[in-house]
Amino acid sequence: MRLAELSERSGVSTATIKYYLREGLLPPGHRISATQSAYDDDHLRRLRLVRALIQVGRMPVTTAREVLAAVEDESRDQHMRLGAAVEALPYGPEPDAADPATTAARHTATELLERLDWHFSGTVADASPAFRMLVSAIAALKRLDYACDTAHLLPYARQAAQLAVFDLDLVEEFETPTERVEAAVAFTVLYEPVLLSLRRLAEAEESNRRFGQGR
Amino acid sequence: MRLAELSERSGVSTATIKYYLREGLLPPGHRISATQSAYDDDHLRRLRLVRALIQVGRMPVTTAREVLAAVEDESRDQHMRLGAAVEALPYGPEPDAADPATTAARHTATELLERLDWHFSGTVADASPAFRMLVSAIAALKRLDYACDTAHLLPYARQAAQLAVFDLDLVEEFETPTERVEAAVAFTVLYEPVLLSLRRLAEAEESNRRFGQGR
Repeated sequence: MRLAELSERSGVSTATIKYYLREGLLPPGHRISATQSAYDDDHLRRLRLVRALIQVGRMPVTTAREVLAAVEDESRDQHMRLGAAVEALPYGPEPDAADPATTAARHTATELLERLDWHFSGTVADASPAFRMLVSAIAALKRLDYACDTAHLLPYARQAAQLAVFDLDLVEEFETPTERVEAAVAFTVLYEPVLLSLRRLAEAEESNRRFGQGR
Repeated sequence: MRLAELSERSGVSTATIKYYLREGLLPPGHRISATQSAYDDDHLRRLRLVRALIQVGRMPVTTAREVLAAVEDESRDQHMRLGAAVEALPYGPEPDAADPATTAARHTATELLERLDWHFSGTVADASPAFRMLVSAIAALKRLDYACDTAHLLPYARQAAQLAVFDLDLVEEFETPTERVEAAVAFTVLYEPVLLSLRRLAEAEESNRRFGQGR
């Protein structure tokens, strides 16, 4: 397809597509004349992923490029590519190493992963930004003196494990390793606001059930 | 307790506490002399909530003030105060009304709430920022042509309902309506990064289980 059709099918303006091409977020099209290129379904799919990262994930272009480089790295197997791409996503603030709450939080997080038998994450815990984000979040709870020991966190972790099963089931509907890695990254980013908004709606519902009037 | 003790027990500097007092985020202490005030456990708890909103929730002071005004509004029952406080939290971008994906997404979201029998949310759907956030998130998935009909969303919603039960169980450990509303708002904000980091860790784990080598 030509640029105009790629734009129409993706809903992304030709100016924006040209910008992504210049920035290397989208691989170049197949040259068909001195001034025209053709694009295929791989371009369309990649364009969707770029939009997910930048528009929904609110990621700077440089971060998106890093994520895409990991997605594309065919020297690694699909699991390692997925891991590298998800690690390149933006995370919150790093844990404050000087704060005693961080030490306590790291202890709780490590114990939690052991209880869950999450060995893979366990072996790379310190290098994993998701682990450091968890430590940061637990430290905030502890610093504010809200209960958050392993027993409090386990049900959340078990729900997260269930969510990961749904996510990976969706991913396995795709065929090639590249499509799967792309879909996994897109779902990670796109389902975060789905999950947070559903949790807030569910809380309103549950609060009404417990504390509301006339029920 | 004096300001110095409030600072020590909360881990918040006296300068920051004075700033929160000036901005009305913290109610004034009880005057004990021309230059000194005394603070109680309510101040300590409120200070924790302010920290959760501003530091972890990365909320501007004006938004935090709005959330706190809803928490404090004793003319309403605890369910309405909780709802108003959670509604005052920051949400993502509003759905783009001109986009056909938004119309389709609103249809899917409404159908989902009906399937879940979430009547409370249903009746206030259009006024609810969490509902609009859900519509926005579903529209992004649809625009990118990723599957997200009611059947795909239901398992996420059921997990969210389970999470709301855990959240409200924690809230019910507190005694007074004000303490409960404060805790509910704090947990909403503080458990979001816990949940997102656990989901990313669980995805790495599940990906290793399905696609990793040597397992």
